[in-house]
Amino acid sequence: MKITGIQEASLPIGSAMRNASIAFDQMTASALAIRTDQTRDGQPLVGLAFDSIGRYAKGGLLRERFIPRLLAAPARDLLDEAGLIDPMRCVAILMRGEKQGGHGERSGAVGLLDAALWDLRAKQMGLPLWQCLGPSPGGAAPSAHIATYASCGHFTDNPDPQALRDEVAQCLALGYTSVKIKLSGRQAALDAQRLRSALDAGLNPGQLAVDLNGQWDKHCTDALAVLAEYPLAWVEEPAAPLDYAALTAFCQIHPGPVATGENLFSADDATNLLRYGGLRPALDRLQMDISLSYGVDEYHRMIEHALALGWTRQAFWPHAGHLFAAHVVAAWGLGSHESAPDASRLYGGFWDGVPVIQGHITLPRYPGVGFEHKANLMAVLQPLC
Amino acid sequence: MKITGIQEASLPIGSAMRNASIAFDQMTASALAIRTDQTRDGQPLVGLAFDSIGRYAKGGLLRERFIPRLLAAPARDLLDEAGLIDPMRCVAILMRGEKQGGHGERSGAVGLLDAALWDLRAKQMGLPLWQCLGPSPGGAAPSAHIATYASCGHFTDNPDPQALRDEVAQCLALGYTSVKIKLSGRQAALDAQRLRSALDAGLNPGQLAVDLNGQWDKHCTDALAVLAEYPLAWVEEPAAPLDYAALTAFCQIHPGPVATGENLFSADDATNLLRYGGLRPALDRLQMDISLSYGVDEYHRMIEHALALGWTRQAFWPHAGHLFAAHVVAAWGLGSHESAPDASRLYGGFWDGVPVIQGHITLPRYPGVGFEHKANLMAVLQPLC
Repeated sequence: MKITGIQEASLPIGSAMRNASIAFDQMTASALAIRTDQTRDGQPLVGLAFDSIGRYAKGGLLRERFIPRLLAAPARDLLDEAGLIDPMRCVAILMRGEKQGGHGERSGAVGLLDAALWDLRAKQMGLPLWQCLGPSPGGAAPSAHIATYASCGHFTDNPDPQALRDEVAQCLALGYTSVKIKLSGRQAALDAQRLRSALDAGLNPGQLAVDLNGQWDKHCTDALAVLAEYPLAWVEEPAAPLDYAALTAFCQIHPGPVATGENLFSADDATNLLRYGGLRPALDRLQMDISLSYGVDEYHRMIEHALALGWTRQAFWPHAGHLFAAHVVAAWGLGSHESAPDASRLYGGFWDGVPVIQGHITLPRYPGVGFEHKANLMAVLQPLC
Repeated sequence: MKITGIQEASLPIGSAMRNASIAFDQMTASALAIRTDQTRDGQPLVGLAFDSIGRYAKGGLLRERFIPRLLAAPARDLLDEAGLIDPMRCVAILMRGEKQGGHGERSGAVGLLDAALWDLRAKQMGLPLWQCLGPSPGGAAPSAHIATYASCGHFTDNPDPQALRDEVAQCLALGYTSVKIKLSGRQAALDAQRLRSALDAGLNPGQLAVDLNGQWDKHCTDALAVLAEYPLAWVEEPAAPLDYAALTAFCQIHPGPVATGENLFSADDATNLLRYGGLRPALDRLQMDISLSYGVDEYHRMIEHALALGWTRQAFWPHAGHLFAAHVVAAWGLGSHESAPDASRLYGGFWDGVPVIQGHITLPRYPGVGFEHKANLMAVLQPLC
C-alpha cells in the first residue's frame, strides 16, 4: 500500500461561547484525509481524522513540515511486517529533525496525522479501531461499552440562569448521567448561582463537575467555599496547566476529586504533573488529550508512567478527542469519555443513531473510527477524500 | 502610525551539521517585516525580525493566526500614550483566544512579531534597541559593551579530529575567548577525543563549554567521567528539557557549572525548571530563548521569577537570538551573548565591521536592532520591506 496524497482543511468551528479563560468565536479545527492506492469493498481506502477543539487548526504545520515528511518517506518504511500502515513508525518519521521540548501546536499536527493513520490501519484490518489498538497498559480487555459524560455550560451572552438549567436538563434528556459546566473560579456569587441552576435541572452534586479552566484565584476564598458546599463529581483544571505549585495548594485545600491535564501535550509534561502537581492517584482524574499530544503511542507512554506511580488506567478520562478518543477509551478500559452533547456540531455527539443510555454508549462495529457514519462530520471530510 | 502590512518568508538555513539530538539539514527560519505608513529620514519606517535557529520557520502560524490578529486590531490599540508602537499591548492582542499551556511553535511566532515590534519602536525613538527596553529586572544600567561566546563544534561527516581543533582555533582568531562545542553525552571515547581536539586549539578548560543537547545517559558513567576530568566552563543541557529529575541527578553528580533552558518557551516552564531542576543559583546559567518564548515581556517575567528565587541577572545567557538578543543582554546587564561565529550565515556573526575583542563586542548605535548593517541578512529582509 502507498499513500498517494494527504489533504487537510481548516474549518471554522467558532460559536458565541466562552470559558473562564478564552472565547471560542474565532476557533478553528483541522480535518484531514490520507489517500492510498488501495480500495476495500470497492471504496478507496482512506484514513480520516478530525481535530480536538480549543487549540486551532494545524494547517500551516501540516503543510510545511509534517505532511511533506510523510510523503517523502519510502512507502515500505511506513508499513509493519504484515504490510499494514504502522502509525508508530510513521510518527517516528514525522518527528525526525524535531528538537526535544516545546510541546504545543506540533504535538497536535502530529497527533492528527497519527489519528488518520490509525483509522487507515483499522480499515485495512476491517475492524473497528477499538479492536486494533493493541494491549491496554495494565492489561484490561477491550469493551465497546463505555462511560461518557456531557461537557457543556459555557458562558454565553444569555444572562438568564434558566438557560444553564435547560442546557443541563437537555443533557439528562439525552441519556447522560454526568454533566460538566464552566465556572469562573473567582466570582463566588456567580459560581454559586450557576451551581444552583445546574442542580435545579435534577442532578445530584455527585453527577455534576465544574471546570475552572485554570482561573482559580487562591486569594478568592469565597469562590473556594462555594465549591466546598457540594460533593461535586470533580473540579477541573483549577490552576494554570503548568503551575504545579498552585495545583498542589488546591489539592491540599479541596477534599473532593480534581481532574486536569488537558493542556499538557507530552508524556514528559504529564509525568511532571504527576511528580509535582500534588494529585492523589486514588481520587483524581487525568485528562490529557490523545490527538493533541502526538497520538496513541505517546498517550500509551503517559498511562504507563502513571501506572508506575500508582495510578490506575480508570483515572484516564481523555479530553475531547470525540469519536477517535472513544475508541481508545473502549480499547484500553479507561475511565470515561468526554463528549459535547450537541450532535449538530462537527465535534459533538456520536455516530448517527448511537444513543447515550444511562451515561454509556456502545461503539458501533464500523471499520476504523467510523467517521463515515456521522453525516455532518463526513460532509466536511468527504471533499478531502 | 499605522501598520500597513506584515510580510514574512520562510528561509532554508540548513547545513550538514548535527548535534547529539537532531540534524540541521532541513532547518528553516522565518524573516519578517512590519510595514507602516510612516517614514524617518526619508526611509519607510519598518520593523524587522529574524528567527532563532533550531525550531523551524513560523510561516503557517504567522499567516493563519497571529498576523491577522494584529492587522485586525484598531491602530490606536497598538500604541502607547506617546504614540509609539507598544509591543506589550500588541502581544496581549496576539494572545487573545489562546489557551494557557502548550508553549511551543506559537511562542516563537509571537516572539518573532514581538522582536519586529521592538525594532519598530526603537526606530521610532531613533535609538538603538538596547536603550529602549526599559529598566533591567534587578536594576542594572544598560551598557553597549557585552560579553559573547562562540557556539560551534557540531558533528559533521568529517571524521578528522583536526577539523574540530581548527574550528575552535578559528573562533579564538576571531577574538572569542570562550567556545562551546557539541558532545554526545553517551560515547566516552568520542567525547574525550573531541575535548582533546578542542583544547588543542589553545583554550584552557575554563574557556571551553560542552553541549549534550539533552542526550546524557546516566547509565554511561564513562561519559560523565570524561566531563569531570576537566574544569569546563559549563556543561549544557545534560538532560531532556522537561526531565527535571534527570537534571537534578546530574547537578548532584557534576560539580561544575550547568547551563540549560533553551527548550523551555514560557515563564511558567522556566519557573518549573528553577523549582524542580536542582540547579544552583550561584553556579549555573539559564539559557531561555527570548524570541522563541513570546518575546521581551515574557523574558522579563522569567528574570523576575528567577531573581525572587535567589538568582542574579548575570545567570541569564540567552540562547541564540542573534542581533536581537545582544540588545537585551546589553540593556539589562545579562551574563553573556551566544553567537554563531560564521558571519556568512544569516544567523552568524554580528553587524558588519563589529569585531569581537577579548570575548566582548560593543553594540553599534544604529537605530533599532540594526539589521540594515548586516548585509547578508538584509539581503533576505529587504524584499519583505
